[in-house]
Amino acid sequence: MNSNTPLLILGIDPGSNITGYGLVKKQGSQLIHIDNGCLTTKRSQELPQRLHSIHASLREIIQKYKPDCMAIEEVFFAKNVSSSLRLGEARGVALLAAAQEGVEIFEYSTRVVKQALTGFGQAQKEQVQKMVQKLLKLPEVAQIDASDALALAICHANTYKMRSL
Amino acid sequence: MNSNTPLLILGIDPGSNITGYGLVKKQGSQLIHIDNGCLTTKRSQELPQRLHSIHASLREIIQKYKPDCMAIEEVFFAKNVSSSLRLGEARGVALLAAAQEGVEIFEYSTRVVKQALTGFGQAQKEQVQKMVQKLLKLPEVAQIDASDALALAICHANTYKMRSL
Repeated sequence: MNSNTPLLILGIDPGSNITGYGLVKKQGSQLIHIDNGCLTTKRSQELPQRLHSIHASLREIIQKYKPDCMAIEEVFFAKNVSSSLRLGEARGVALLAAAQEGVEIFEYSTRVVKQALTGFGQAQKEQVQKMVQKLLKLPEVAQIDASDALALAICHANTYKMRSL
Repeated sequence: MNSNTPLLILGIDPGSNITGYGLVKKQGSQLIHIDNGCLTTKRSQELPQRLHSIHASLREIIQKYKPDCMAIEEVFFAKNVSSSLRLGEARGVALLAAAQEGVEIFEYSTRVVKQALTGFGQAQKEQVQKMVQKLLKLPEVAQIDASDALALAICHANTYKMRSL
């Protein structure tokens, strides 16, 4: 693929309460913000219904924008086994939605995302959030989960650039 | 629901490599084995493709047998955060398949399943496997993941009996 071919990247930050998503188009050396948002599930809902709602919304987003690829966090550790299980469930339905729509998936660790955005792998969450706002020329910072999803998309856009050199 | 109304229970033991399933019909005080098996994914496949395959197979099984409910293990701990994440991903798509087909889900801890099958919450896996064979009059023990799924279905059948008294 020529490095000037536009690439539409969907970043996803999954969670059973809030799943952030962000769409970034890479066109030449430009990064263009397309959309971002948070899929919020009701705490009163049972887990299977929440997963159903996350999965259905992600499929809708994929069908609407038809991204070329999806970028998602590579998880090495979570707070504990229970939070890691909950994260896995949300992550599972997000990966499934992409697989069902034939979207290629790329994984990046938090450290790599921070490094790509700020040049520093140990950067604070807020620094990353501000860099996302700056790089995509957003009028204000995006909600944290949506911003993390945009950061993943930007990280993929930069990695892709390096690969295509 | 009258305790004589037949109840078809689908037990599921999810995993990204092997997902066991087992179908048990409870009719009055009788437990009838309907089917069991293992959904095995190829290790050469990427994770999203494996999740896709588990999800598609489970939806097919649910559509074929139309179970009244699904019994799945309640997980409190796993070996480590990474295995818990992998388990969560498989569990997520199993819960999704049931939610999409409108099947009610019940969770039971390993201790409760072992207690229900053998009368002893700390029973060995093999003891549970033999009790499953005995209770369902199987010609031989089922494969361990399928047997665990049948154990979950039997556990739900017994709990349901207690509830309906």
